[in-house]
Amino acid sequence: MNIILHENEEINDLEFNGLKIIQSSNGFRFGIDAVLLSDFAKDIKKNSVIIDLCSGTGIISILLSGKTSVQKIYSVEIQENVADMANRSVILNNLADKIEVINSDLRSLPDSFIPGTFDAIVTNPPYKKYNSGFTNDNKEKLISRHEIMCSLEDVICVSSKLLKNHGAFYMVHRPDRLVDIIDLLRKYKLEPKILRFVQPFATKAPNLILIKAIKGAHSFLNVESPLIVYDLDNSYTEEILKIYNKR
Amino acid sequence: MNIILHENEEINDLEFNGLKIIQSSNGFRFGIDAVLLSDFAKDIKKNSVIIDLCSGTGIISILLSGKTSVQKIYSVEIQENVADMANRSVILNNLADKIEVINSDLRSLPDSFIPGTFDAIVTNPPYKKYNSGFTNDNKEKLISRHEIMCSLEDVICVSSKLLKNHGAFYMVHRPDRLVDIIDLLRKYKLEPKILRFVQPFATKAPNLILIKAIKGAHSFLNVESPLIVYDLDNSYTEEILKIYNKR
Repeated sequence: MNIILHENEEINDLEFNGLKIIQSSNGFRFGIDAVLLSDFAKDIKKNSVIIDLCSGTGIISILLSGKTSVQKIYSVEIQENVADMANRSVILNNLADKIEVINSDLRSLPDSFIPGTFDAIVTNPPYKKYNSGFTNDNKEKLISRHEIMCSLEDVICVSSKLLKNHGAFYMVHRPDRLVDIIDLLRKYKLEPKILRFVQPFATKAPNLILIKAIKGAHSFLNVESPLIVYDLDNSYTEEILKIYNKR
Repeated sequence: MNIILHENEEINDLEFNGLKIIQSSNGFRFGIDAVLLSDFAKDIKKNSVIIDLCSGTGIISILLSGKTSVQKIYSVEIQENVADMANRSVILNNLADKIEVINSDLRSLPDSFIPGTFDAIVTNPPYKKYNSGFTNDNKEKLISRHEIMCSLEDVICVSSKLLKNHGAFYMVHRPDRLVDIIDLLRKYKLEPKILRFVQPFATKAPNLILIKAIKGAHSFLNVESPLIVYDLDNSYTEEILKIYNKR
């Protein structure tokens, strides 16, 4: 297959179902958070129609195409060059019938789609507040990491509009934003049902959270056992190896 | 000292600073949650004036009298017989100058005290919603465990009224209520700042949460490392042994 690769782009093997991804060599590259969210969301029901918000290079959509039997994934990314990269990855993986990349501001989605019709939404949004600790990162990294182009409230508000009643919302984020997250999910009628903390070690504080909310559900939260990344000897735990398809 | 002990009451040694407590032999008895909350709240500042809401037999107030240098603790308990037991424990421990037991409905406290004047509040409230799974427990246990005499919202609303700006709120509760807790704390301007999960084992789901909120603080949550109760060999972890004063 003839796929155009621009300067400073490379193709990485995902070592899962033969899937590959095009990434910048020096821009934003996917991390463990995207892999963990894809695994956390693998209970999305067969034939679901879903949206991946802030989809970046499409990593979560591509992994979910292998981990689930969803019917259709709309991958929404605001940065034109990143969405283009995602689109080329979709073609490279022969997934054009399953994944549609949309280069759009997510805030405009309720005008393009029929509200209340999606089965599930997955999102790995920027973690940092708008004006918190901007660094010298390039523009692409800045937009991926900071709430510059959309806020956490935008992501949750739009998700609530698009999801059908009892539709599922899956997100990966940082523990320090948990209060904001819960507050906003409740505000937009997405009831948190499962919360899982990701810890580097069994005795360390978490550095990521995985959260699943259900639109219109009643109040009862299941805080699961922590997802521990490393054993004491600094090797990956069995669970992480399974998630990375090494077991 | 001559302390009246009623039928079905006993004196238990707390094995800490020579402190003792009077408890029912067959009613509600303090558990690990009270001990962990007392330890979690031990950073309450010297000379603070504090309230212990839903204080029961006074276990938390009595432990805090040994773990902190607070000036005064008001222990508020709605059940007359339980408050009376707490008062006898205070006398037994020679703490009458430091702990004052108040037999009152906590909802009436804002009429008895000057709002906005307390430095800290600690509370181990009933965990279960009003009509969730009532059992055949005796009345004392039922009131201690279910939101019969006061709701979570009552506890948080009253705490917010009584605390001074930047005053601290410490609570132990169940993980399944975390969403309700965060939602209500935000509603009453008590910003959650520290959250710690208590897990029976390092790889198990938590069964308790410890939460500290500060009135009027800005949004940033510190989720600490989990507090693990047992090692793999079923013995207490070093941290638990320290909390129980065995190290």
